[in-house]
Amino acid sequence: MTLRLRNPDREVEVAGARRVREVLADLAIDPDTVLVIRDRTLLTREDVVGEDDLVEIRPVISGGSDGAPRRRHRSGSGPRCRRCRAPAVIELRRHNSSFCQPCFVHHVHEQVRRAVKDHRMFDPEDRILVAVSGGKDSLALWEILLGQGYRATGMYLGLGIGDYSDRSGSVVRAFAEERGAELLHVDLRQEYGFDIPTAGAKGSRSTCSVCGLSKRYVFNRVALDHGFDVVATGHNLDDEAATLLGNTLRWQTEYIARQYPVLPEREGMVKKVKPLHRLSERETAAYAFLQGIDYVVEECPLVAGNTQLRYKDALNHLEAGSPGTKASFYLGYLDRAADRFRDADAAAAAALVPCERCGQPTTGRFCAFCRARAQMLGERLGAPRPDQVAAELSDETLPVEIYGR
Amino acid sequence: MTLRLRNPDREVEVAGARRVREVLADLAIDPDTVLVIRDRTLLTREDVVGEDDLVEIRPVISGGSDGAPRRRHRSGSGPRCRRCRAPAVIELRRHNSSFCQPCFVHHVHEQVRRAVKDHRMFDPEDRILVAVSGGKDSLALWEILLGQGYRATGMYLGLGIGDYSDRSGSVVRAFAEERGAELLHVDLRQEYGFDIPTAGAKGSRSTCSVCGLSKRYVFNRVALDHGFDVVATGHNLDDEAATLLGNTLRWQTEYIARQYPVLPEREGMVKKVKPLHRLSERETAAYAFLQGIDYVVEECPLVAGNTQLRYKDALNHLEAGSPGTKASFYLGYLDRAADRFRDADAAAAAALVPCERCGQPTTGRFCAFCRARAQMLGERLGAPRPDQVAAELSDETLPVEIYGR
Repeated sequence: MTLRLRNPDREVEVAGARRVREVLADLAIDPDTVLVIRDRTLLTREDVVGEDDLVEIRPVISGGSDGAPRRRHRSGSGPRCRRCRAPAVIELRRHNSSFCQPCFVHHVHEQVRRAVKDHRMFDPEDRILVAVSGGKDSLALWEILLGQGYRATGMYLGLGIGDYSDRSGSVVRAFAEERGAELLHVDLRQEYGFDIPTAGAKGSRSTCSVCGLSKRYVFNRVALDHGFDVVATGHNLDDEAATLLGNTLRWQTEYIARQYPVLPEREGMVKKVKPLHRLSERETAAYAFLQGIDYVVEECPLVAGNTQLRYKDALNHLEAGSPGTKASFYLGYLDRAADRFRDADAAAAAALVPCERCGQPTTGRFCAFCRARAQMLGERLGAPRPDQVAAELSDETLPVEIYGR
Repeated sequence: MTLRLRNPDREVEVAGARRVREVLADLAIDPDTVLVIRDRTLLTREDVVGEDDLVEIRPVISGGSDGAPRRRHRSGSGPRCRRCRAPAVIELRRHNSSFCQPCFVHHVHEQVRRAVKDHRMFDPEDRILVAVSGGKDSLALWEILLGQGYRATGMYLGLGIGDYSDRSGSVVRAFAEERGAELLHVDLRQEYGFDIPTAGAKGSRSTCSVCGLSKRYVFNRVALDHGFDVVATGHNLDDEAATLLGNTLRWQTEYIARQYPVLPEREGMVKKVKPLHRLSERETAAYAFLQGIDYVVEECPLVAGNTQLRYKDALNHLEAGSPGTKASFYLGYLDRAADRFRDADAAAAAALVPCERCGQPTTGRFCAFCRARAQMLGERLGAPRPDQVAAELSDETLPVEIYGR
């Protein structure tokens, strides 16, 4: 049997017929962090792989797929679907249950419906701008929203990260074309004069920090300019739990306060929602795979050393010892702690004034995006130049390329 | 060169003269989790060890000493004391500084003075009961309080954990005798009819849980009976950070609220303080070593699989990537978050009533200790038997053996 391991990309030979869980244990791979794929089909831990198989072990959790092997497992015949008792294609340890393909797809849609309803994210008449990167989460989100009949337009922001961005852009365009969905495209360098690799090399912020900042800024700007009611992002439970861990380890109360699945509209800030926050990274990866969504599996090449990955790694180790840790951490925060931090955000919101350069809300004279951009371009953000401010504050909308309209 | 590694206890041969940091890197040992000792002297990372050395690598952090080797290190000559520029015996990455022996001892005492003062833990006239286990933290605490002139009586609770308890008891008695300090001794089996190994095997609580419960109960009871103003425990920064992580991952708001270095006196509950909460486990271990305090290095043999160790392990990994993580987590909680949880504890405190069996405060009919004990002894805690309650609620004090008075 040949195993193809993605990330790192290598092939290993495994002798004889064995259960998936045994193969993963030998490789010290945490089964909760990978999809095991044979002939375009997901395998459960109890499935047997044999001599002539080519099996792909695809990591789903950013930060790698290493970790302690599981101790507990079912013995005997393969797992069955919790809803209909058909043979299962995926096991979810956190829910202590397994699903067949149709019931798993139903489960994912239900989790999104519940998120949308519980947090009043949007209504069927709302125009939703879906921030799509080409990864599993954002494409799964877009597909789900389209499938549930929402008015969901995709938007792709070209970050200029060489081949990685090229591939991401193609995947997103192919997705939109295949489904006849509307896609907006903005190129960071073209519109703002810098790209992410430059930003990482020149600015004082980390690459990941300036990338996140740019995305939040541009998606908000485009949503405002083009009359969208809400921006939806593909943040999943693992993302939110890792961010919450980072914010909590430093007790950054203002950030903790803003870690909600919905950020309401404010002057100059469109409403933001995270409909996948109840689904783990492995669930969104399995969903994308099962629905035949072609997505970019590789991590961003600039992500190495990202602190977010360290938090994910820490949580993965804790989750391996105690399944459900991430869900009880993030969802428990929403239930029992978020209200205790609400005032920290309110205080920050009260202090917002328009950026003297671009007009977007900020706490200082210039917003973080304009400051980072000026640093990158070697500009000085001194006293406001009235002509320039007027131009930037004008009603002119940011030009976007529109596909599929 | 022969290296003696404690926990696991083994010896390894290392060829040639090398720096301590290189030796640790080869063994994949995180320098922040061990003391390196030669000829009863601490070595820094830059010290060179050679062919004829017998070097002990002593773990200080419960949960083992594995972890990623440090990347950054000084080059050139050895580190110097931050206060007096003498050659250093210990480096503290979190403080980005090194200390010689006298200045390190001064630093530890200062941290304790600051904790006592900031949180108004006790005054010189207060009678302090120090809960001592025989480990580095509690003995260091007792030694520091005695050194600072406080009226500190030790109390040792015999847990009945075979050789481990025997050794712990001897170490504590030797400490008290050597210093002419007063020591109280209570034996759990003798007074309450069970010991910790039995508790782990019989009860529904985990061994560590029933052990912690028993300690809190008995120390409080003895302090009340014998007129102590305050119970001081040796919980260090690593302990508090790990507990806070566990409570935060589940957002157990009532427990989070009670994670304060001081718990004030309440009806039936003596004041509790944690004067070492600003010092890491490695700092207390180094202090105990440098002051020649003989302590039990081994972990409790029943501790395997303890979830607290998983939290310590997660924090150690995060600390290795970002020194100061634990301190900013726990001390940041005290500064910026504790107030937000205060009401959860107040609500719990308001609901306290006397246990129908022993009279100690509890939220139900019977306190957790009486319930756990009844389960262990196969008793039924049904309707209160007035004769029994009267006896247990009487003014009779719990008998203790007193040494050194």
